[in-house]
Parts: sequence; structure tokens; C-alpha cells
Amino acid sequence: MEIFGLEFNLSEIVSAIVPVLLQVLLLLIAFAIIKPIGSKAITKMIETMGAKKNLSPGRTKTLEKLCINVFSYALLFILIVMLLGTVNIDIGPLLAGAGIIGLAIAFGAQNLVADVVTGFFLLLERQVEVDDYVTVGGYGGIVEEVGIRTTKVRGFDGTLHFVPNRLIEGVSNHSRGNMRALVDIGISYDDSIDEAMKVLQEVADRFKEDERFKEGPDVLGVQSIGSSDIVIRILGQTKNMEQWAVERDMRKAIKEALDEAGIDIPFPHQVNLYKGEAKETV
Amino acid sequence: MEIFGLEFNLSEIVSAIVPVLLQVLLLLIAFAIIKPIGSKAITKMIETMGAKKNLSPGRTKTLEKLCINVFSYALLFILIVMLLGTVNIDIGPLLAGAGIIGLAIAFGAQNLVADVVTGFFLLLERQVEVDDYVTVGGYGGIVEEVGIRTTKVRGFDGTLHFVPNRLIEGVSNHSRGNMRALVDIGISYDDSIDEAMKVLQEVADRFKEDERFKEGPDVLGVQSIGSSDIVIRILGQTKNMEQWAVERDMRKAIKEALDEAGIDIPFPHQVNLYKGEAKETV
Amino acid sequence: MEIFGLEFNLSEIVSAIVPVLLQVLLLLIAFAIIKPIGSKAITKMIETMGAKKNLSPGRTKTLEKLCINVFSYALLFILIVMLLGTVNIDIGPLLAGAGIIGLAIAFGAQNLVADVVTGFFLLLERQVEVDDYVTVGGYGGIVEEVGIRTTKVRGFDGTLHFVPNRLIEGVSNHSRGNMRALVDIGISYDDSIDEAMKVLQEVADRFKEDERFKEGPDVLGVQSIGSSDIVIRILGQTKNMEQWAVERDMRKAIKEALDEAGIDIPFPHQVNLYKGEAKETV
Amino acid sequence: MEIFGLEFNLSEIVSAIVPVLLQVLLLLIAFAIIKPIGSKAITKMIETMGAKKNLSPGRTKTLEKLCINVFSYALLFILIVMLLGTVNIDIGPLLAGAGIIGLAIAFGAQNLVADVVTGFFLLLERQVEVDDYVTVGGYGGIVEEVGIRTTKVRGFDGTLHFVPNRLIEGVSNHSRGNMRALVDIGISYDDSIDEAMKVLQEVADRFKEDERFKEGPDVLGVQSIGSSDIVIRILGQTKNMEQWAVERDMRKAIKEALDEAGIDIPFPHQVNLYKGEAKETV
Amino acid sequence: MEIFGLEFNLSEIVSAIVPVLLQVLLLLIAFAIIKPIGSKAITKMIETMGAKKNLSPGRTKTLEKLCINVFSYALLFILIVMLLGTVNIDIGPLLAGAGIIGLAIAFGAQNLVADVVTGFFLLLERQVEVDDYVTVGGYGGIVEEVGIRTTKVRGFDGTLHFVPNRLIEGVSNHSRGNMRALVDIGISYDDSIDEAMKVLQEVADRFKEDERFKEGPDVLGVQSIGSSDIVIRILGQTKNMEQWAVERDMRKAIKEALDEAGIDIPFPHQVNLYKGEAKETV
Amino acid sequence: MEIFGLEFNLSEIVSAIVPVLLQVLLLLIAFAIIKPIGSKAITKMIETMGAKKNLSPGRTKTLEKLCINVFSYALLFILIVMLLGTVNIDIGPLLAGAGIIGLAIAFGAQNLVADVVTGFFLLLERQVEVDDYVTVGGYGGIVEEVGIRTTKVRGFDGTLHFVPNRLIEGVSNHSRGNMRALVDIGISYDDSIDEAMKVLQEVADRFKEDERFKEGPDVLGVQSIGSSDIVIRILGQTKNMEQWAVERDMRKAIKEALDEAGIDIPFPHQVNLYKGEAKETV
Amino acid sequence: MEIFGLEFNLSEIVSAIVPVLLQVLLLLIAFAIIKPIGSKAITKMIETMGAKKNLSPGRTKTLEKLCINVFSYALLFILIVMLLGTVNIDIGPLLAGAGIIGLAIAFGAQNLVADVVTGFFLLLERQVEVDDYVTVGGYGGIVEEVGIRTTKVRGFDGTLHFVPNRLIEGVSNHSRGNMRALVDIGISYDDSIDEAMKVLQEVADRFKEDERFKEGPDVLGVQSIGSSDIVIRILGQTKNMEQWAVERDMRKAIKEALDEAGIDIPFPHQVNLYKGEAKETV
Repeated sequence: MEIFGLEFNLSEIVSAIVPVLLQVLLLLIAFAIIKPIGSKAITKMIETMGAKKNLSPGRTKTLEKLCINVFSYALLFILIVMLLGTVNIDIGPLLAGAGIIGLAIAFGAQNLVADVVTGFFLLLERQVEVDDYVTVGGYGGIVEEVGIRTTKVRGFDGTLHFVPNRLIEGVSNHSRGNMRALVDIGISYDDSIDEAMKVLQEVADRFKEDERFKEGPDVLGVQSIGSSDIVIRILGQTKNMEQWAVERDMRKAIKEALDEAGIDIPFPHQVNLYKGEAKETV
Repeated sequence: MEIFGLEFNLSEIVSAIVPVLLQVLLLLIAFAIIKPIGSKAITKMIETMGAKKNLSPGRTKTLEKLCINVFSYALLFILIVMLLGTVNIDIGPLLAGAGIIGLAIAFGAQNLVADVVTGFFLLLERQVEVDDYVTVGGYGGIVEEVGIRTTKVRGFDGTLHFVPNRLIEGVSNHSRGNMRALVDIGISYDDSIDEAMKVLQEVADRFKEDERFKEGPDVLGVQSIGSSDIVIRILGQTKNMEQWAVERDMRKAIKEALDEAGIDIPFPHQVNLYKGEAKETV
Repeated sequence: MEIFGLEFNLSEIVSAIVPVLLQVLLLLIAFAIIKPIGSKAITKMIETMGAKKNLSPGRTKTLEKLCINVFSYALLFILIVMLLGTVNIDIGPLLAGAGIIGLAIAFGAQNLVADVVTGFFLLLERQVEVDDYVTVGGYGGIVEEVGIRTTKVRGFDGTLHFVPNRLIEGVSNHSRGNMRALVDIGISYDDSIDEAMKVLQEVADRFKEDERFKEGPDVLGVQSIGSSDIVIRILGQTKNMEQWAVERDMRKAIKEALDEAGIDIPFPHQVNLYKGEAKETV
Repeated sequence: MEIFGLEFNLSEIVSAIVPVLLQVLLLLIAFAIIKPIGSKAITKMIETMGAKKNLSPGRTKTLEKLCINVFSYALLFILIVMLLGTVNIDIGPLLAGAGIIGLAIAFGAQNLVADVVTGFFLLLERQVEVDDYVTVGGYGGIVEEVGIRTTKVRGFDGTLHFVPNRLIEGVSNHSRGNMRALVDIGISYDDSIDEAMKVLQEVADRFKEDERFKEGPDVLGVQSIGSSDIVIRILGQTKNMEQWAVERDMRKAIKEALDEAGIDIPFPHQVNLYKGEAKETV
Repeated sequence: MEIFGLEFNLSEIVSAIVPVLLQVLLLLIAFAIIKPIGSKAITKMIETMGAKKNLSPGRTKTLEKLCINVFSYALLFILIVMLLGTVNIDIGPLLAGAGIIGLAIAFGAQNLVADVVTGFFLLLERQVEVDDYVTVGGYGGIVEEVGIRTTKVRGFDGTLHFVPNRLIEGVSNHSRGNMRALVDIGISYDDSIDEAMKVLQEVADRFKEDERFKEGPDVLGVQSIGSSDIVIRILGQTKNMEQWAVERDMRKAIKEALDEAGIDIPFPHQVNLYKGEAKETV
Repeated sequence: MEIFGLEFNLSEIVSAIVPVLLQVLLLLIAFAIIKPIGSKAITKMIETMGAKKNLSPGRTKTLEKLCINVFSYALLFILIVMLLGTVNIDIGPLLAGAGIIGLAIAFGAQNLVADVVTGFFLLLERQVEVDDYVTVGGYGGIVEEVGIRTTKVRGFDGTLHFVPNRLIEGVSNHSRGNMRALVDIGISYDDSIDEAMKVLQEVADRFKEDERFKEGPDVLGVQSIGSSDIVIRILGQTKNMEQWAVERDMRKAIKEALDEAGIDIPFPHQVNLYKGEAKETV
Repeated sequence: MEIFGLEFNLSEIVSAIVPVLLQVLLLLIAFAIIKPIGSKAITKMIETMGAKKNLSPGRTKTLEKLCINVFSYALLFILIVMLLGTVNIDIGPLLAGAGIIGLAIAFGAQNLVADVVTGFFLLLERQVEVDDYVTVGGYGGIVEEVGIRTTKVRGFDGTLHFVPNRLIEGVSNHSRGNMRALVDIGISYDDSIDEAMKVLQEVADRFKEDERFKEGPDVLGVQSIGSSDIVIRILGQTKNMEQWAVERDMRKAIKEALDEAGIDIPFPHQVNLYKGEAKETV
């Protein structure tokens, strides 16, 4: 066969193309086998893990979807690269080009990856659950959603905070277990500490029957000697999220009990010395 | 054919050039096919996503344009590199040169990429919408525009803040749902807490009928025992952006109600002790 | 031909040199074509963009010059590298050497690149214009010049700040639109809030006719209950840069109106209790 | 054998495949031998180390599991790569592809690796044990769990802090050895320092018999000359975690002893000078 | 020729060495030509630039020396590498070794490079000149020397600050143009604002004739309503570095004028309420 | 020999294997020689250095162990890599794989390396020794152990701080040489400065005989003119760790001497002006 | 010669080994020549530089030792690498292995390199000399030693600070040139500013003869109008390190001069208004 005076040997061309086609076919088959098997394996693994860690079905699904997505894209990327390699198109330039672009992207996208990696563990480990009261990345409030990239926290003032997961360095979860109720009361220097502690302990004892208390409040003692008062501390353990209401009730009860017992919560004190008039020059 | 005493064999030259031309042709055709298909696929994908996430048409368009731009430039870059490779010009040096330049650029341009990547998700996820009142990257105000590189926020003092998207780490959106109205009132140590709470609850009850309130204000109790006053807290949920007006109205109503009931909002107190004149040396 | 007993075959040498010369020629021609075309394309592009974005001719020129410079140097660098490659001087060592030097430079020069990249967008996007009052990178004042590497800001105390563009992360532009005029006035606990608000609103109404006001000042209500006063807020929108003068005038007018109406702006208050002499030990 | 007019030489194919199969077999055998030996070696090493460092069996197990996991995955990864290399599938593209993905991952996952590396040493070195009272990464409280990725600390207010191990830079362990009990008492300028120190030393001596004290409290002397008082310091060493209770008891005892001895804990003092009436303009 | 029973063919050796020598010669000649041309070109360029930017001859010289040094060392480095390559010593190992060392150095030396790069622009752009009063990198004072690596600033307390150029991020130059003279004066609530402003304006008018003033001082109005005074602001523009002396003179003049006019600069005020004796318990 | 119809030539195989075996043997011998020599050399070097720097034998041992460990592992790693290279197993993939893993590790483990590098110098340079009182990395206290990875510091409150060596940036060692004893005493405005200084110098002179003082305390003069007192400073040099006890003794002695001399340590002063009753509106 | 049935041709082996030996010899000779020449050159260069910069012989020696050490180790490293390359041991794996280790080291050791690089310039540039009073890296005191890795600073409280050179970013050297003596004195509102300035100037004039003053102290004028006093500033230049003693003497002299002239240094002032009794409810 001659084109433009050049001879083409058909059988040579065929014998060059056929093995390539075979290789392509092999690759496609290999990947067609690997993909579903991999996906299955991932699903299985995540589900086992989810069951063991007692995760909600929603979370397990999210984790599965994420893992299978990452797996699929990686597989696809490798398939394309290997196909190009097989078809004998020199993929060096392509890879080099992709490398330069990739470097630029990597710099910019590392935050994204960091979000997803942290998100993966947030979902997996139950550090944070919807309706928990948490402090994460400097934002405090009730968790509304734990996403793979962002966690939504509803602040107590009504603001909705979108917190990128990578900012969630340490998690302070205020909804795990009993909370502390703590009231510091300053009494005057002139009042008897023993008497004041007795009155306060009586109030505390009354609250011990309150079912919101898990560990009855008790008077600890003299917490500090302030510049105008002796500070006495009362401490207890309450049901979760009841600590504020309990503290408010205790403050009211203590104030009333002290009033009754005639014990003073002192105002700031100052001793004044006088020096007649200042200078004659006035 | 002889030039400068050197023989050139035309047919050899032709047989060297033709396959190159064929390869170039093949590449051009390949890319001519890939580009519109890729663009279509992107458009489709973004539109489906936009519909699912309920994005405005404007946003969908911006996202489409961005994605297609990135796709086109990447494709073009790869096409050029591969063409040069085909034409047998050694692209090693070119790539190495580009690599050095690229590294320098990458260091400088990573901010740009980070802006665009963050901008992409800002547009996609509706964390921030025009006319929302938000706090992002330390700037607070009303969103005027969400761009692919910069978000414009109008501060309450009239200043227009241009916030690069990469600075938008956590988004605090104050326009999603009801807001809290909170008023703390200090009453004097001498007044009855019960009576004061009754008066305050009456004011709160009057406001419950106010339609700006979503969850009627209520008196919570004794928030703290201050150095000169007992602080009582009133809390409610209002319609979004009504919280400030509501708080102002409540403060006025409470002040007037307390005046009427003869309950004092106390000034700072101090107990003074005296010690005659200070030293005879004066 | 024999030199030092070594034979040189001239025709061989010629046949080795000629193709190299041809390649060099081709490269030079290619670049001679690419450079002006590229420059033209850039000029065109920038000018179209400038027209669309309504940039001043000066800015468009600066951007053009920058882009063409970068393009020219990149082209020159690639040309040299490719020429060396063609002339068969092994450029491996050269590139490796350049790589090591380049790495050191890149670390040091990234600030420079970051300045220029940010500068490019500052010029392009009109975030900042000469004579705007802005706060950028912690420096506030009037913009005197927006350069490709540095922005000059004249502080209000007369200092000239040279701000490297990379430090300009978020731009707060105080010269875009109306500005807020805000006056907080504390009235005494003993005065009637209603009466005070009436007096203040009368002052505000008088200012509504002032043409510097875009949105007449109005009394908002009780902003806070301070320790010694009730704070009332008055708010309006003024022409840009008139906010300070307007606020000064309002403060004077309000003070005079309150004096006239006999309403007090209270000093800090304190309640004093006495406890005879302190101890006999004195 | 002819397929599509192409001849295949069976024996050639066989002679091409057999050595490959042999190599694969060799690799598999090698790894089958290396894995259990490596695991055993690791187990042995960790156990010896654990015994020497007196670690709890739980910790030793955790460390073993971690080390064997890392070892297994690394081995598996290398096996796959080498198998692919043997089967003559060009793994260049695959590795390059993996490299780009890997770079992106590495940026995002470095936190994870840093967590595990720090966690490894936390487990190994007994800096922190369950039920210790520690301050790590800005969070203080009782350790509830030391994990390979996260350490759980229960704050004294009931909050459960999840602290990623990489944030644990310096560990302050408050449960190792005796703790300091320190009480600063201010006495008035008019009281004799000697007398006050005698009274305080008497209180301290009484506490020396308290078994919670490891090193009896002693009066150190005049710690500072304050603006209204002379501050005297009392210092001792107590059993771990008893320091707060002891300090509270000492404060109460000291207050009562000083009252008895008629020594004053002074309020802030001020000397007042008077200047008749201020200006006639009033 | 035989050595140790091995034959050496002299002519072969010669024919191997001669071309190498020729290449070395060529390289040396090339560099001998490039170096002076490059140096000349740099000198020319810097001098043109210096003339255009109106730089002092000293600065131009420093810049020239720096540029030629960098150029020479880079050239020398490349020459050595290429010579080694020519002489057929495999420079791979050498480069690899240099690469590892280089990386370590680069990490440590980047500060040095950053200093020099910043220094280059500091010298070129006249942001800072000797005897300017500047604030750079947190250090304020009079510039004593602008070097290529370090800038020396003499603080007003006599300290000599050596500021590495890389720390000079933003430059605040206080010696470019007129400076602001600003005096805030608080008058008492009881005094007439109009009258006080008249007296102050009279003082300001007297200063308008002072030649140190570029823009006569004027009374702006009521800057703020303080807790005990009404603050009035006077503002003007003075010659550079005269602002402090001018402000001192104005303060003295204003104090004397107000005294004369019988207008009070008020001390802090406090309203005292009394509540008989505190409790009977005393 | 035929297997599956394939011929194997035994002598060919042998002639392929023998040189490999020889190479392996050579490598093993080389390393068997290098390891003990290297270890010896290191031991020698460290010991010489230790002797010169006067290090304790324990430290020298720790440093030796560290250096020999690092040396051994590096040698082992290189041996394995070279053996694999010799046996003709293509180590490219292995190295590439290790490279990707290594990169991830390097990011995570750099802290570890930084700890050990800093620890090495801490041990070598005697900046910190057991029982020194130091401030390192924000933790202050007595050093209990200087380790290769962590330094243990016992805080004065009994807490044991584990400080990773990399956090030890600057070391403040309070146990090297004499310490300063400094007492600032405020005297009243009405007392004679000369007289007060005389009294204070007398106290200081008495302390000069105290052997805890290395450089007798002296009265420096008027350190500042405070708002209510004239502050006079007394300064001396004491034996290490005696400074606090000495200062306490001096404060007591000074207070008593001033009392005797009738010189006042003044309380805060305030001048009060009065303005009859505030407004008629009360 | 036959071993295991394999033939070895001795002459072939010899002819393979001899050129290698020659190359090794050549390398050794080359390095034997380069090392002393390089060392000499370095010594010369440093000494010339030291002489020009007027460095002490000790510093020059330290710099020489450092430079020659770095040069020697680099040379040795390259020699080993090249020898291995010559002996035909494939150094690829070795280098790759070293590369991975090197990367890990580089991350950890960059601080060390940064210390040495900064130390080099500290020694070279005389920014800091032994016995200078400096503030570096947040530590202030007298320099005791400038080392290549660490600078020792003796704080005024006796603490010895070891400051790694890399922390020395900006150097504030307080021992270069005259220091400022500055005294601010507040006089009462009722005193005549003119008269007070006259008295102060008289004191200043007396100090002008004090030889510790380089630029006689002068009264500058009214520095600020404080809330209770008029602040007048006196400024002068003293010999280095005499500033504190001079200021102390001036404060004493001024206080005495003002007392004599009957001019008051006022205490804080407050105007008190009274409002009968607070509420009837008491």
C-alpha cells in the first residue's frame, strides 16, 4: 500500500496494534474486577467497624460513600495513566505537566484534604454528636451537623457557625457525663466562718435531695481571703446541662439563707485616712 | 539533492515528517473531541448539583465558568506539551525551565489557589449568601457579594471589607434562624429577689405577645452575685435581626417597671472605714 | 587534514554543524514570531479587561507592562535553555546548578512573588484606589499610590506607610458608600427615659435637614444599662468622610439641648456606707 | 499458531512466562517468611521494653498492635509494588500517579501521622497515666484514656476534652510527688511583724502533725510590702491532691488565730486630702 | 607501550584528550567573554536605574557591587560544574552530594537570602533613607545606615537597633511630608462649649502665624463626651519633626488661656450617695 | 536440562550467580569492618569531647549510645539497600515506595528528630544540669532529668513538667553565679529623701556582713516618683538561691528601721474636692 | 584459571582494575592538592576581612575554624561519594538511602544550620560584643560570650540566658553611643507652668556641668495634660550606662528644688458631688 509514495505494510501495522489492544483489554478487565471487589471490601470493613463502634447508620453510610469515592477516583486516575502508557503515547510530558499543575493545586487544596481527613475521624470516633454541647475551634454551641468537610455548631446567641473540620483541633465536649455546679460566696471579715459554713451547708443539704444533683453539693471551705471578704466555696455534681439552672437556684437560696441568718455579703471595703486640707496654696 | 555539498534524500525526509504530522493530527482531533465533551460533562454535573443544592442560577453559572476555565487551561497546557514532544523538540529543557519558574510562582500564587478553592466551596455550599449578616475572617457585616476570589462584606459603620476567601476559616452566620434576646439586670442586695423576679416576669409576659418574639422571654433566675448587685437574667428567642430592637425595648420597659415597683438598680457600693488623721507628721 | 597526528574529516564536521545551525535558526525564528504575537495578545487582553472593569489608563498600562515583562523574561529563559540544548552542550549540569541556586532564591524571593501576585489583583480589581481611606495590613490612612510591589498609605498623623502588597490580606475600604454617624449618650437613672428620648429625637430631627446626612439620624432606644447611667443611642448615615464632623456637631447640639431640658449626663456614681472608726488599734 | 494472521510461538511465550512466575513465587515466599518473623521480632522487642519500663499489659498490647499494623501495611505496599514490577507492567505511571495523590494526602494527613508518633511515645514513656491530673495542650483535668491518636481529659467542670496527641507539646503532670501548699496573708502596717509571724508559726506548727503534710508548713517571712499590707508567706509540702483541702483548712485556722491575737487583715487603704470646695463656678 | 602487561595506544589517548581540551578551552573563552559583558550590562542597568530614581552614588555603588557579586559567583559555579562535566568526571555523585548539603543549607540560609532580597529593594526604592525617622519591624528611631543585610536604627533612648532587612515588612516613614499636631482638651460639663471653643480658637489663631505650622491649627469641635469632661480637639499640620515642640507650646498656651478665661480643666468626678452606717453588726 | 520444554544451562546459571555471591560477600566483609571501626571512632571522639568539656560519665555514655545507635541503623539501612541492588532485585520500586512512606513519616516525625538534635546539644553543652533552677520553653523549676528526647522539670508547686527538647529554645539558667537581691521601698512625699536614704543605708550596711551577700546591698537612689510615694531602691548580689530569703529578711529589717525612724511607707493618696450637693433634681 | 568450573582471565581482570586504581589515585591527588589550598585561601580571606572589620584575633580564629571545618567535611563527603562511584559500586541506592535519611535530618537539623549561619554573621559584623548590654530574642542583659551556636547573656537578676543564635532576629545594642536621660515631672494645675519650668531649668543647668552628661539636660515643655497634673519633661544625653544613675540623681534634685520653691507634685485628684442619703429604702 502506498500513500504519498510511502509504503505501509498492513500486516506489520496489525501485528503492532493487536498486542496493544490485548493489553488495553487486560487492563480494563483487571480494573473491572478490582473495582467492585474493592468497594465491597470497603463497605464490609466500614460496616464492621461501625457496628463495633456503635455508629448510627447515617454515619456509616457517609463514611462508606467517602471511602468508595476516594477509592474510585484513585482507581480511575491510575487506569487512565496506565492506558495512555499502554497506547504508547508518551505520558512523560503529560505527567510532568500534571505534576506542575498538581503542585500548585496541592498547595491550595491541602486545607480541603485536611478537612476531609479530620472529618473522617470525627465521624468515626464519636467525639462529637448531633445535639452535643461542644467547644471546637473557638466556637461553642450545640452541634447541628457533623459533615465530612464542615461541622455546623449553633451558638447560644442563635448564630450558626460553619467550622471547617481542620480547625477542630481539640474537642471539648460538655455533654458527656455529669457537670460541676460551683458557687463562691464572699462573707464579711467580721462574721464567724464556722457559722457561715453551717448556714451554707444547711442550704447544700436541702439541695442534696434535688434529683438534678448527682453528687450532693457540699461546702468545701475557705477558698480565698479576698481584699474585702472571705470566699467560701460550695461544690456539687449535677445532671448534664442542668448545672446553670441549679447554680441559679442555689445562689437564690444561699442569699436568702444568709439574709435570714444575718450574715453579710460585703461590699468592697476601704480604710480612709485624712490629712486636713491639702497645702495652703489652694 | 545537495546543499553545501551535503546530500538530502527527499523521500527519507518525507517518511520522517509524515508520521509526525499524523501524530499531531491525531492529538488535535483527540483534544477537539475531549474538550467539548468535558465541558458538557462539567456543565451537566454542576447544574445537577446546583439543582439538588437549590443554588441560584447566578451561582451555578459562576461555578460552571470556573470549572470550564480550569479544565480548558489544563487541557491547553497538556496539548502544547504533548505537541512539542511529538514534533521531537526535546521538551526536557523546556519543562525543567518551566519547573523552576513554576516553583517560584507556586510559592507566590498558593494564596490565589487557596482563595479559589475556598471560594468554590463557599459558592457551592450556601454557608454565606448575599444579605446575610456574617462574621468571617475577623470582619463582621452584611455580605454584598460572594466572589470566586474575594467576598465583600459591608461593615455596620459603612466600611466595605474585601475579604480574600482563604481568610474565611470559620463562618459565623448570624442570619440563620432565631436569635437570642438577653437582658441582665442588677438589683440591690436589699431588695427581695422574689419580688424583683415577679416584676421582671410581668414585663417578660407582656413581651410574649410581641410577634417579634419566637420564644417568649422568661426570667431565668440569679445569674451572679456581683460585688454591689444581684444580677437577674431574662432570656428569649426573637425573629432574626430583631434581637437588638427587642432588647432595647425590653431594657426600657424593665427600667420603668422597676422604678414603679420601687426596686433599685444599684450604683457601685463601697464600705468606708475611718482612721482619724494620718500620722502627726502632716 | 591532520592536527597533532589526528585526522579531521571536514565534510563530516560540516554535516554535523549544519543541522544544528538550522535548528538554531528555526528556534530563533519561532521565538521572533511568538514574542510580538504574545505581547500583542496580552496587550489586547489587558485592555479589554481594563475597559470592562473601567480601570484608569494608568492602571491598564502598569498591568500591561508587568504582564509583558514576565512573558518576555520567561520566553528568553526558555530560548536560552533550548539553544544550549540544541548546540549539544549538555545542559544537565547547568540546569542542576541553576536548580540549586534557584531553590535558594525561591525561598528568599517568594515574598517578592507574593507581593507582585497580590499587586496584580489589587490593580485589576479596584479594591483600593488613590485617595481612598483604607485600612490594610494594620495600617490606616489615605492611599497615595498603588504599586505592583508596594502600596503607599498616608497615615492621619502624617506618616507615610509603605505596605508590601502581600501584607494586604483583607482590605477595609472606608470610602465606598455612606458612613455611619453614631452617638451614645448616657442619661441619669433619675431622669425619665421618655423625656430624654423626646429631647434627643428633636435634635436628631433638626439634623435630618442637614444635607450631609443621607439617612436622617434617629434615636434607637436604650442601648445599655450602665453602672451609673442609661445609655441612649442615636444613629444615622452620612456622606462619606463627613461622619466625624457630623458626630462632633451632634454631640455639641445634644449636650446643649439636654442642658436646656435640665437632663443630666451623670458622672460615675458610688454608694458609700460607713463603719465608724476602724479598729481601736489605730 | 495463527490468530488474525499473526503467528504465536507457544514455547516462546512459555519461556517468557515461566521465569516471571518463578520470580513471583520467590517474592511471595520471601514475604511469607519475612512477615511472621518481623511480627515476632516486634512483639518480643515491645514486650521486653514494656517489662523494662514497667508498662501495664494493656499499653504493651496497644503498642504491639500499632507496630505490627504499620509493619504489615508497609510490607504489603512494597509487595504489591514489587509484584507489579515483576509482571512487567510498567509501574512508572502508577507510581507517578500515586506520587501526586500521595503528595496531596501527605499534606493533609501529616497531622494524623504526628498524632500517632506522639501517641507512641506517650504510651511508651509513662508521662501520662489514666487518673493522673495533668495539663496538656492547654486542657487541664483528669486523664480518662491515653489513645494512639487522642487523649481524653476530664476537666474539673465535667467537660470531656478530646486532645489530639500532636497538641500535647509539654506535659505538666500534677500527680507525681508532693504538692505545694502556699498561703499568703497580709497584715496591717501597724501590727508588729514579729508578733504576727509568731502567731502564724504557731498555726503552722499545729498543722505539722497533720498527716497530709509531708513537709510541715513554715512561715517564710515578708514576701512583699504591698500598698496597704505586709504580706507574709507560709509554705509546706502536702500529699498529692491534698493541697487544696489543706490550704482551705489553713486559711480558716489562720484567720481565726489572727482574730484571736487581735491582728488585723487590712482592707485597702487610702489617704484623703481635702481642698475645700472646688471653684466658685459651681 | 606496555605497563603491567597492558598495552596503551598513545595516539588513541591523544585523540581522546584533544577534543576534551578543545571543549575546556571553548568553555573558558566563552566565560571570559560573558563575564565582563555581563558585568558591564549590570553596571549600566543599575546606573540608569539609579539616575532615573535619583539615588545617591553610594547606593548605586552598593547595588552594583551586590549584583555583580551574585552574577560572578553564579557564573563561577556553573563554569566549574560544566568543566567537570566536560572532563568526563561523572558529576552525578558530586551534584547529588551537593544537593543534599544544599538542601540543608537552603533551610538555614533562607533568612540570609530573604535579607538580601529585601535589602535590594530597600536600597533601590528609597523607602528609607539615612536620617529618616522610621518605624520598621517593631523598632522606631533615626536610620543610621541602610545595608544589604541589616538596617541600623538609632532609638530615641540611644539604643542602636540592628534590624535584619527581612523583618522590615511594612515601613512607616515619619519623615515624608508634614506631620499632624493634635491637642485634646477636656473642659468641664458646666462650662459653655461655645465659649471654650472661642477661647481655644483664639489660641489656635495666634499659632497660625507660627511658621512651623503648614496648615494652621483649628478647633474641630466636640471629640467625645467623657465621663467627667467634654473633650475638644484642635488639629493642625506642622513642618516635619516640629510636631512635638509645637504640641508642647500649644498645650502651655491653651492651659494659660483657659486659666485666664476662668474655664476649668476638670479632675475626675464622682457622685457619692450615702447610706448611714453599714449594718448594726459592726 | 529441560523443564517444561525449556533448556537451562547450568554452567551459565553458575557463572551468573557466582559473581553476585562474591559481591555480597565483599559487601558483608566491608560492613563487618566498617561497623566496629566506626563505633570505636565515635566512642573515642565522644569520650575526648566529654573529657574536654568536663561532662559526667553518665552523659558521655548517653551520647555514645545515641551516636552509635544512629550510626548502626544508618549502616544497616544502607547495607540492605545495597544487598538488594546486588542481588539484582530491582530496588527502584522499593525505594519509590519507601520514599512515599518516608515523606509521610518525615512530616510526622520531624518533631522527634528535632527533639533528639536539640537533646544532643543540651547533653553536650551543659546549658542545663540536674538540680539547676531553670526556665525552659515556658516551664520553670528544678531540672530532674535531661533526656535525649525530653527534659523533666519539677515546678515549685510540685508539678512535674515533661518538656520536649525542641521546645527548649532559649534556656534561662538561674543557677549560674550570684543572684540579685532587690528591694524597692516607697517613702512619703513629706519625708526627707536624705534622711530616708541614710536609714536605709544603715540597714544595708548591717546586711553587708551577712555571708549570704556576695556584693553588699547598697542604696541606689530615687528609682521613681510615684503617684503617692518616692520609690528608693536597694540592690545587692547574693549567693545563688539565697536571693529570696535575703530579700525577705531585708524587707522585715527595713520596715522595722523605718518605723523606728518615724518614716512613713505611704498608702495611696487622693486629693478630694467637693461641690456641695449635685443638682437640685435629686 | 578455573574456579568452580569458571574460567577467569587474569590479564582481563588486571586491565579492568588498573584504570580504576589510576582514577582513585588521581582523585586522591586532586583532593590532596585542593584541601590545603582551599584552607589557605579561607584563612587568608577571613584574616583580611577580620583586619578590615577590626575584629579581635579570637573572633577571626573562630570564624576560620568554622569555615575550614565546613569546607573539610564537604570535601570529604564528596571524595567518598566520588570514590564509590569510581570503584563501580553503584552508589544510586546509597545516595537514595542517604537522601531519605537526609530529608528526615534536614527537617530536624535546620535549626542547627540556622543557628550557625546567624552565628557566623554575628561574629563577623560586631553587632554584639562581650560586655555589651543588649536585648536579643527577648532576653536582656550583659553579653558574656558570642558563640557559633549560642550567645550567652547574663540578665541583671543574675540569670544566665543561653540564646540560640537563630532567635536573635533584631539586635538592640544599648552600649553604642550616648544614652538618653529622661525625667517626667507632674506639677499641680494651680502652679504656674512658667515658674515650674524656671525651677526645673535651674536644676537642669546645675547638671550640665556634671561630666556624665554629654548633652546637658534641658526642660522641653508641657509633655501632656494629665487628669490631675501638668507633666513637664526634662531630657538630656549621658555617657553610656550612666543614664540610670543620672536619672536617679536628677529625680532627687528636682524633688528637693520643687519642695524649696513650694511647687507641688500633686496626688491624684477627684471632685466629689453629694446626693444626701441614697433612697429611703435603706
